[in-house]
Amino acid sequence: MGAEKTKAFGTIAADAPLNEMNIQRREVTSKDIEIEILYCGVCHSDLHTARNDWGGTIYPVVPGHEIVGRVTKIGNEVTKLKVGDLAGVGCLVDSCRECNSCEHDLEQYCLNGFTGTYNGADKHLGIQTYGGYSEKVVVDEHFVLKVPANLDLSAVAPLLCAGITTWSPLRHWNVGKDSKVAVVGLGGLGHMAIKLAKGLGAEVTLFSRTPGKTKDAKELGADEVVISTDAEQMKSVQGKFDLIIDTVPYVHDINPYVSTLNISGTLVLVGYLGELDPMLNTVPMIMGRKTVAGSVIGGIAETQEMLDFCGKHNIVSEVEIINIQDINIAYERMLKSDVRYRFVIDMASLKK
Amino acid sequence: MGAEKTKAFGTIAADAPLNEMNIQRREVTSKDIEIEILYCGVCHSDLHTARNDWGGTIYPVVPGHEIVGRVTKIGNEVTKLKVGDLAGVGCLVDSCRECNSCEHDLEQYCLNGFTGTYNGADKHLGIQTYGGYSEKVVVDEHFVLKVPANLDLSAVAPLLCAGITTWSPLRHWNVGKDSKVAVVGLGGLGHMAIKLAKGLGAEVTLFSRTPGKTKDAKELGADEVVISTDAEQMKSVQGKFDLIIDTVPYVHDINPYVSTLNISGTLVLVGYLGELDPMLNTVPMIMGRKTVAGSVIGGIAETQEMLDFCGKHNIVSEVEIINIQDINIAYERMLKSDVRYRFVIDMASLKK
Repeated sequence: MGAEKTKAFGTIAADAPLNEMNIQRREVTSKDIEIEILYCGVCHSDLHTARNDWGGTIYPVVPGHEIVGRVTKIGNEVTKLKVGDLAGVGCLVDSCRECNSCEHDLEQYCLNGFTGTYNGADKHLGIQTYGGYSEKVVVDEHFVLKVPANLDLSAVAPLLCAGITTWSPLRHWNVGKDSKVAVVGLGGLGHMAIKLAKGLGAEVTLFSRTPGKTKDAKELGADEVVISTDAEQMKSVQGKFDLIIDTVPYVHDINPYVSTLNISGTLVLVGYLGELDPMLNTVPMIMGRKTVAGSVIGGIAETQEMLDFCGKHNIVSEVEIINIQDINIAYERMLKSDVRYRFVIDMASLKK
Repeated sequence: MGAEKTKAFGTIAADAPLNEMNIQRREVTSKDIEIEILYCGVCHSDLHTARNDWGGTIYPVVPGHEIVGRVTKIGNEVTKLKVGDLAGVGCLVDSCRECNSCEHDLEQYCLNGFTGTYNGADKHLGIQTYGGYSEKVVVDEHFVLKVPANLDLSAVAPLLCAGITTWSPLRHWNVGKDSKVAVVGLGGLGHMAIKLAKGLGAEVTLFSRTPGKTKDAKELGADEVVISTDAEQMKSVQGKFDLIIDTVPYVHDINPYVSTLNISGTLVLVGYLGELDPMLNTVPMIMGRKTVAGSVIGGIAETQEMLDFCGKHNIVSEVEIINIQDINIAYERMLKSDVRYRFVIDMASLKK
């Protein structure tokens, strides 16, 4: 595998399907780790970026930021991992390393803008970064994670985005044994939120619009499922939760959930970027010191903490393994929420 | 002063001016403290309740929940104060005392509903509670505050509502010497927020729509005044504040303020009850773990802490003393924000 020619799967336009292509990876520098990618999770962001749903996509784009693999080469100053070790890469491959956020292990909030694993501004090559739908990736060791050896590697991949995105708010808002946590939406993020909150010892409730996911939610660890369209059920959980993790990625009314927060409780949005429509009512917030917050992925140290926690507690994602050649079909199924709960690409298929 | 006939100032209808009337006060029970009211602050809530702006007013209504005075009688089990001591009463005169909130000194969030100092449900007499626009008040000692003797008593009165309403969020969100705090709106609450945040050692900025209040704000302790209608000035404080206390009591766009929050910062609404119009945009919240919260007054222990702090740091409200007979004029002036920064009634005028 030469540095100049790495096999990948990506697209050249918003309306073109993903297809095989060659991309450039940099030569390993003194601080870099080269990773042979074994599995890559499929995140909604992959699809949105490939199709330029948010604007700003630079083509060609190679998605993928739930990367696990094996170290194949390291720079001479690398201390974190050695050749042959398992390794993971999440949503970030670089940040400024000197702002207040970076100094506090909050690279995801880098004040100078972090470098995304794909469609970011590659400081080395001066082009866009390319993600994990590829044979290999070269990343500065600071942004490479150690992967616990005892877990099913394919099911670890989604921890690098879906896992850390829900772990970070659970930790920031101090969820523990006495906490009552609710999760809104049972998808890639929601199912990880249930598992991780349960792992931390919390009592966990899933809010779902339909009863169809009740059995699954309980198998994942939820203590209770509340059907959010059922007024009686919603009434029964008024004022209950210390933390609600809202993973719903489209506009929806959060007011009914705010009312289910305990005094001083927090509803944290991790999925929906946009305006709160219908309008947020401040009355229950003021009369109960309730807060509405946002959170994005997590820092590198926190991601390592999460992976170590998952190793210790045997927590992985629920996955459906696909070949890279089926990625366009997977995107269509993902749009219909037809996946329980995360597609993961077996990157061996790229060698075919 | 007999228990059955206490002179007061109140109104019998939403469209009637306040006038002199007699009200009933209960006999002092074993846990009660009777206070001769010397000064009573005038809060916007007084006006809104008198005029039934929020609905739910029971007439006759006697407003006033920023009460200071002197103890004239105590029940045989009272230990907190003795006859002749200075005493204060704020927005609460009772709560259930047994819910989780009450057990944690958060009587303002009593899960069974606290008893407001006026227009509340009086558990003793079975009628509505009557507030501080009166000669005296009888309150359970738990809800009576000790007042530092070194402060100007008339200027202490507004601490019981305007003071604690801003103190509580400053303390809950851990404001201290390294904090950067902003205050939106310079009225009764805003001017106390500046003084208290400054007292806690924070760097304090006032957001104001017009430059007219700059001199005042700086005299009150603000380090900086940012004119919120000036795009350049707003740009200069992007990402700056750890806590913003928004005291504006009417609907307004909070999105420009959210952008001035630091990573993990909080904007807390203490003045506006209603829907956030225009809609709150979650993008800066998610991309910077920013939160929007609400807060109402404070608990009794926290109110005592605030009064003690004010005694130690010589902090009082800026007040304009009026006679009770001028209350209707004062309400009209208050509606035009024509007061710097709180009217306080000299209750000696009620004896005239």
